[in-house]
Amino acid sequence: MNASTAHPLKPLSSLLDDDHFHDECGVVGIFEHPEASNLAYLGLYALQHRGQEAAGVVSTDGQEFYNHRGMGRVADVFSAKDIKRLKGNRAIGHVRYSTTGDSVLRNTQPLVINYRHGALSLAHNGNLVNARELREELERAGSIFHTDMDTEVILHLAARVDGKDAGERLAAALSQAKGAYSIVALTETRLIGVRDPLGFRPLVLGRLVESGGYVLASETCALDLIGAEFVRDIEAGEMVIISEKGIESRRPFAPVGRRMCVFEYIYFARPDSNLDGINVYNARKRIGHELAKLYPKDADIVVPVPDSGVAAAMGYAEATGIPFELGLIRNHYVGRTFIQPAQSVRDFGVKVKLNAMPSVLKGKRVVLVDDSIVRGTTSAKIVNLVRDAGAREVHFLVSSPPTTGPCHYGINTPDRSHLIAAQHSEEQIRKLINADSLGYLTMDALYRAMGSRETGYCDACFSGDYPIFKEIGAEERQLRLIKEG
Amino acid sequence: MNASTAHPLKPLSSLLDDDHFHDECGVVGIFEHPEASNLAYLGLYALQHRGQEAAGVVSTDGQEFYNHRGMGRVADVFSAKDIKRLKGNRAIGHVRYSTTGDSVLRNTQPLVINYRHGALSLAHNGNLVNARELREELERAGSIFHTDMDTEVILHLAARVDGKDAGERLAAALSQAKGAYSIVALTETRLIGVRDPLGFRPLVLGRLVESGGYVLASETCALDLIGAEFVRDIEAGEMVIISEKGIESRRPFAPVGRRMCVFEYIYFARPDSNLDGINVYNARKRIGHELAKLYPKDADIVVPVPDSGVAAAMGYAEATGIPFELGLIRNHYVGRTFIQPAQSVRDFGVKVKLNAMPSVLKGKRVVLVDDSIVRGTTSAKIVNLVRDAGAREVHFLVSSPPTTGPCHYGINTPDRSHLIAAQHSEEQIRKLINADSLGYLTMDALYRAMGSRETGYCDACFSGDYPIFKEIGAEERQLRLIKEG
Amino acid sequence: MNASTAHPLKPLSSLLDDDHFHDECGVVGIFEHPEASNLAYLGLYALQHRGQEAAGVVSTDGQEFYNHRGMGRVADVFSAKDIKRLKGNRAIGHVRYSTTGDSVLRNTQPLVINYRHGALSLAHNGNLVNARELREELERAGSIFHTDMDTEVILHLAARVDGKDAGERLAAALSQAKGAYSIVALTETRLIGVRDPLGFRPLVLGRLVESGGYVLASETCALDLIGAEFVRDIEAGEMVIISEKGIESRRPFAPVGRRMCVFEYIYFARPDSNLDGINVYNARKRIGHELAKLYPKDADIVVPVPDSGVAAAMGYAEATGIPFELGLIRNHYVGRTFIQPAQSVRDFGVKVKLNAMPSVLKGKRVVLVDDSIVRGTTSAKIVNLVRDAGAREVHFLVSSPPTTGPCHYGINTPDRSHLIAAQHSEEQIRKLINADSLGYLTMDALYRAMGSRETGYCDACFSGDYPIFKEIGAEERQLRLIKEG
Amino acid sequence: MNASTAHPLKPLSSLLDDDHFHDECGVVGIFEHPEASNLAYLGLYALQHRGQEAAGVVSTDGQEFYNHRGMGRVADVFSAKDIKRLKGNRAIGHVRYSTTGDSVLRNTQPLVINYRHGALSLAHNGNLVNARELREELERAGSIFHTDMDTEVILHLAARVDGKDAGERLAAALSQAKGAYSIVALTETRLIGVRDPLGFRPLVLGRLVESGGYVLASETCALDLIGAEFVRDIEAGEMVIISEKGIESRRPFAPVGRRMCVFEYIYFARPDSNLDGINVYNARKRIGHELAKLYPKDADIVVPVPDSGVAAAMGYAEATGIPFELGLIRNHYVGRTFIQPAQSVRDFGVKVKLNAMPSVLKGKRVVLVDDSIVRGTTSAKIVNLVRDAGAREVHFLVSSPPTTGPCHYGINTPDRSHLIAAQHSEEQIRKLINADSLGYLTMDALYRAMGSRETGYCDACFSGDYPIFKEIGAEERQLRLIKEG
Repeated sequence: MNASTAHPLKPLSSLLDDDHFHDECGVVGIFEHPEASNLAYLGLYALQHRGQEAAGVVSTDGQEFYNHRGMGRVADVFSAKDIKRLKGNRAIGHVRYSTTGDSVLRNTQPLVINYRHGALSLAHNGNLVNARELREELERAGSIFHTDMDTEVILHLAARVDGKDAGERLAAALSQAKGAYSIVALTETRLIGVRDPLGFRPLVLGRLVESGGYVLASETCALDLIGAEFVRDIEAGEMVIISEKGIESRRPFAPVGRRMCVFEYIYFARPDSNLDGINVYNARKRIGHELAKLYPKDADIVVPVPDSGVAAAMGYAEATGIPFELGLIRNHYVGRTFIQPAQSVRDFGVKVKLNAMPSVLKGKRVVLVDDSIVRGTTSAKIVNLVRDAGAREVHFLVSSPPTTGPCHYGINTPDRSHLIAAQHSEEQIRKLINADSLGYLTMDALYRAMGSRETGYCDACFSGDYPIFKEIGAEERQLRLIKEG
Repeated sequence: MNASTAHPLKPLSSLLDDDHFHDECGVVGIFEHPEASNLAYLGLYALQHRGQEAAGVVSTDGQEFYNHRGMGRVADVFSAKDIKRLKGNRAIGHVRYSTTGDSVLRNTQPLVINYRHGALSLAHNGNLVNARELREELERAGSIFHTDMDTEVILHLAARVDGKDAGERLAAALSQAKGAYSIVALTETRLIGVRDPLGFRPLVLGRLVESGGYVLASETCALDLIGAEFVRDIEAGEMVIISEKGIESRRPFAPVGRRMCVFEYIYFARPDSNLDGINVYNARKRIGHELAKLYPKDADIVVPVPDSGVAAAMGYAEATGIPFELGLIRNHYVGRTFIQPAQSVRDFGVKVKLNAMPSVLKGKRVVLVDDSIVRGTTSAKIVNLVRDAGAREVHFLVSSPPTTGPCHYGINTPDRSHLIAAQHSEEQIRKLINADSLGYLTMDALYRAMGSRETGYCDACFSGDYPIFKEIGAEERQLRLIKEG
Repeated sequence: MNASTAHPLKPLSSLLDDDHFHDECGVVGIFEHPEASNLAYLGLYALQHRGQEAAGVVSTDGQEFYNHRGMGRVADVFSAKDIKRLKGNRAIGHVRYSTTGDSVLRNTQPLVINYRHGALSLAHNGNLVNARELREELERAGSIFHTDMDTEVILHLAARVDGKDAGERLAAALSQAKGAYSIVALTETRLIGVRDPLGFRPLVLGRLVESGGYVLASETCALDLIGAEFVRDIEAGEMVIISEKGIESRRPFAPVGRRMCVFEYIYFARPDSNLDGINVYNARKRIGHELAKLYPKDADIVVPVPDSGVAAAMGYAEATGIPFELGLIRNHYVGRTFIQPAQSVRDFGVKVKLNAMPSVLKGKRVVLVDDSIVRGTTSAKIVNLVRDAGAREVHFLVSSPPTTGPCHYGINTPDRSHLIAAQHSEEQIRKLINADSLGYLTMDALYRAMGSRETGYCDACFSGDYPIFKEIGAEERQLRLIKEG
Repeated sequence: MNASTAHPLKPLSSLLDDDHFHDECGVVGIFEHPEASNLAYLGLYALQHRGQEAAGVVSTDGQEFYNHRGMGRVADVFSAKDIKRLKGNRAIGHVRYSTTGDSVLRNTQPLVINYRHGALSLAHNGNLVNARELREELERAGSIFHTDMDTEVILHLAARVDGKDAGERLAAALSQAKGAYSIVALTETRLIGVRDPLGFRPLVLGRLVESGGYVLASETCALDLIGAEFVRDIEAGEMVIISEKGIESRRPFAPVGRRMCVFEYIYFARPDSNLDGINVYNARKRIGHELAKLYPKDADIVVPVPDSGVAAAMGYAEATGIPFELGLIRNHYVGRTFIQPAQSVRDFGVKVKLNAMPSVLKGKRVVLVDDSIVRGTTSAKIVNLVRDAGAREVHFLVSSPPTTGPCHYGINTPDRSHLIAAQHSEEQIRKLINADSLGYLTMDALYRAMGSRETGYCDACFSGDYPIFKEIGAEERQLRLIKEG
């Protein structure tokens, strides 16, 4: 065990940079199954698209807690021997993605601590917007921190509040936290699932029919793999406590109305998942239909930017009758990193993932469909690839509205100054990415595709309407937006 | 460097089991580029679909030879430091797939040896059918073997024959070998590419426009990634010798007529590659058109088994007008291995890769398109998944003729006794995989899709017409076929 | 970074088993040297005998803290690259030995935390006897623990107390701790060294002549290797604070009189170290002289049990004139573990380390000198080895008094029930180890060798006189002793 | 198994540099024991002093051969799992030391090959002086080489010669080799041991009393650890073949008279080993007695340079009556490498291993005893250390004659131009190492200590009398000596 973790430990000031607290993640929890850790591992396998940087599982037999975490993909982090060592009938798991320099073993989840009430383990998907303030307060009161993660802030709060059981303590801790969180927690006797009052991130409940056990997971695709039956979505603001007595549902927070992240449907979730009752693949196809209504092009073929643009491109082709073609082929074996030659290969960064086919594209008027434009540089390279392969025209359709603001609720987007749509007009963007035409989805069309706006979604990255800051009050929000703008 | 290779070293008898010499592979060669090893590495990256078990690169600066090989995917085997250590302007690389127990570091390529004429390195895609006999002869003459690979047999032959240069020696060695080989070889001063007289496996030549250098690769997709211009396919029976004087083409073998592997088009090659002038994606779509003519179904949706069935399914949908839908979602993050729970999850092996969507499939009459049926067990599980998701009917179309024989030329297929189509009628297979109907591509339809039968293809796995054995003589072939049957 | 730490996380009850808090360690600190982490690493190299299980270094450039820790020996834990990453002019380091199951990466030092006053890093040699109580109190107040180490208890205390600087806070924290500690601590601006009021464990101050910097280390041998000049021992109860302003000495604790561990001289420290002014090698030779006075044997040769018995045996030989011979040869390449055959080799455990030479021992009357007898089993095996090699008589002399009690102050000894001298008379022990005669050092002889008893030593493991418990009060001590007896 | 071996593969010319073929090694073989690989591993453990760079074991169950090799010490290379995988009742093992750049996994032993007669595994201690010629001849005949080792040359020869069994083939192969070799070899049914006609390197035979099996090992200390009984030394020019029928002794080479390496006694072998009937520790002590006769000094203390100077210093002290003191303490935890600070610490390279004690040396006239002076730089640093610690006079005695020539028979010494005694007079050396006086052992004194010159020793590194070259003929030797001089 020669493992080592040489890394700069940031002093307080640098730790509070907003970027550190952004992370996309997936969580899973298993209650009462003889192979709990194996099922948790498989759940993470199915949720791998939510984070490929690190993975971990904590299990318990009701007495001891067992822990295995590592950097990399689920398949690389766990061996059969590791799974075997993770004893007990209950387990929680976590996959994590992060682009910051603090991609270190120390910052992997689930965390597990010993405190006055025993042991508590926690895995968290989301982002606390007041993590900085809470951390400062806790440090003033004598808490010491070992990681940079929001998760540790929640654990410190839980160790200091009162409550007659772990559920109450976790609720009391979370009532001080503002932001997005879908959490699974494990104690000696309970598996707990919580979704923040606005329900930004998904969390579903499933049932292991044979063992009579329960599963919590970020998405339904995890239930499918382990053969669990979908029961229902955990609701915004709900806490479920699963113990030997069964499932108890609590409502520890004041109701404020659901604000599920709409970008989960557009890009982040797996197409075969159903989130709050809506199938992701079908939603994307309907978005394609809406794009067809908004931008009926006189074109020869519709080509998706794979994989996230596929379903919307299929929807567009279906609605317009223009043939759907795979003019860009994706290399699915691409690892997390590759070694780039010093001497530049033109558009290398995109070529490693995508190859354009002249035999499909040559001489064609092409409708290209992608999920979003963030910085614009990748989109420009993709348009170049398609033109180099001989396309006569390239019409770039985007299956989301312009991304004009960062996400504070758990998706890692750059700040406003790097968002092309926050800095440029659509016509400027069209020129910058060298497309013949450019069409974004409109907000109205988005919600037609989603069925209804009224269900309650967070679309802050498109609309600037940040639900938490509205709740906190205009003044404080002002403060933050100035800093970011 | 605590690496170790504990493994059973097979005594002679067990080494000669046919299975050992079957391997699917990809090769690449770079001549004269300041970052030769980095380009070789990127070429392997693009050829990763041809072998995920092991990868290696050998480079030379004209004096020393540098070598890095490892088990696993290209991205995992090489670090930036490894690439840096692989000095010199010339390099060859290899990716390998094998299902045998001898998946060990020792059996990775390229091999590099020292012999009386200096150093010689070799990477090989294909399979020698007389490797056993050659090896026995060589051992009788005093050769000693360190690996189980055909590649070492070729090197031993090259070390013993005469010839005025490395090209002549390699040709003399290969004239004793029977079977399939596309080879790249590296000496102190030359990069050599050879394709066997029948040209079973592909090999293409590209040009690095800026450096004026050359590239050899199994498929054109490798040229695309490193920004090399496609020059031409190496022809069946051709040897090209690339040196500082330029390219020399030789014809060391008696002409016997091209027999390119047709299964490369159906399944093995990447869709964005062009093999001997034919684009793979387009060929697969045309196969879909042929299936539509053969099996026009009264169905609601066409669903591919991803990824290899996608283009054929698109072709079928295009020709029939039945909507194309992604009713099966593939998990692209699946590693080479996963840890299976002891208590069985129904159809687990297939579920790890594929998830069926009720929201797409429920109540539908489904045309399912896959590239082939080998043992039949996987196909049966896939039909089950689709039915469990609510499909009303499942019509299974196969984008190749029935697989009735093993491949002796480099693709790893089980022997006849495990091939469902060698043992059962189509109606029996339909029942075994639980489909409402089953339709295979016909040989005639296959060659309509390929443009012409006359170009010369190997279709031995469908037709039983093994070109080498025909050449060798009916008698010897009989011998082998009895053994296998 | 695929490193992982699968291990049972003990719930509170099992964490409090006394054995967990026993650990022998070495510490080092460097202030103001451009290669601080390299010097810290070399200091640990010299202190390797104090702990071979784990090693770590934390450095700082005044802003960031850098951290590298690993399981194993110093030479295995650190690469040149690791050292390079440990930036800054100040560093502390730690080596650790432990025989418990919790020999995991998580439990390595130095620890580094973020708290309200910035960052604080700490490395600790010793053992707190009230760690259990402090931990319980801290958890009641909301602290959460990530490790099983006393060191974390001290950090939690420091995070909660007041004080105008890190020195005051550390002193306030330590004033609540009872037990043995020699500590080096690092903040953004200061290197701090503290020795507990009784000064159980050694700690010395050195000076880097060229850079004008300072060194703290467990033993003088660490100063010698890095070319530092010995300045003085840190005194019992003293705290030194090294900053850019120089060295400040504080006396934060009430004076109680020095009680330096006498076993450091007999066994634990390196012979070339000087502890509190006394050279270890010379002390051991004087102990040999005392043994000669107590037990003048009619023997042919004096043979040490290498390495710890060598100096005392030389002293005995010198005083008696009996020839000194190396009849037992030690294998210095022995690793921390070896793989034992299932089928037993007689006296295997001892043979791996020691080989007896018939050519020296055959027919001889042998005086065998070892440093101590703990469980007695090893001594019995050694006597056997010597007899099997042909010795006619074996007289076993021990360079310490009978070990009748465990150490609570940082040396890992088994509890009373496993100490042969706590359970048996000397004559019984002689029989059990199969010696012709047995002679222990007496307490009086020990202190004659040490120069004076008055200087103040802890000899609790021989005398039962536990300084801390005396201080705490007879009642509490009773409690503990019953539990242990 | 991500292990990789990036290294320059030397073309022929550079491979023939003499340095490559020098290596000090240890070998072991086990025949018929249920834990053969574990015993082989333990034998290597005991022989670790003969090579710390790499280790390997090959075992067989009579059908399959199993192989585990790695870089580093025995304890680091093998896990219990590795040992378990090395099945079968027979095994051979090898430890290797080398200072060349080719310290790579590829160059570790035992080698195992498949050839026409089955499998053959070989481990070799020594050096072939005609390896270059043999290799060239073999390559001309079509052999290809995968390693740089002499061992592979022997295997190639064995694969090409005739003979009715493996023993005859190995003998026929070795009859073409000139130089030093003590070999253990393993076939499906036999364990073979051979010592070259001059018997340069040791090889002993032992018996496993309980299992009735046999052991071959470089030194008797390996027999001691695994509890095997010493039977006898394998004689110069003898081959023993151990099979189920028992032991057969053959004399395949013409007798030329024994020339055992005398430096094994002075430095290389472990003190507890008996080589050809002489105990190493006693021989060293007798050398000390001889030094006392040659150089009776008026000194206060005798101090050895540990560990190899200890026994000779004890002998000197015993004979002169001058007290023996450990004034230099060796750090036994020193790994194979350490990270040196850029800013120099005076005499750092020596300080990492040795610390001088002022409390022993201050004001003293010191006789310092070391085994040899090679380049002189280390000796100079040691004298400096001793003077810096306060010694008044330093008299440097060497327990061997001046080293004036390199070894061609398996010990890694620099060439003549780097040997201080080949370039300078004794008085010049004394000045260079800054000693008050310098005394080398004489050849006559050496052989008085060894008992007799007539037994037959190789002392070429002292005398220039290279037995092989004498045998080969003056002319050829001339050739070589010019090259080296």
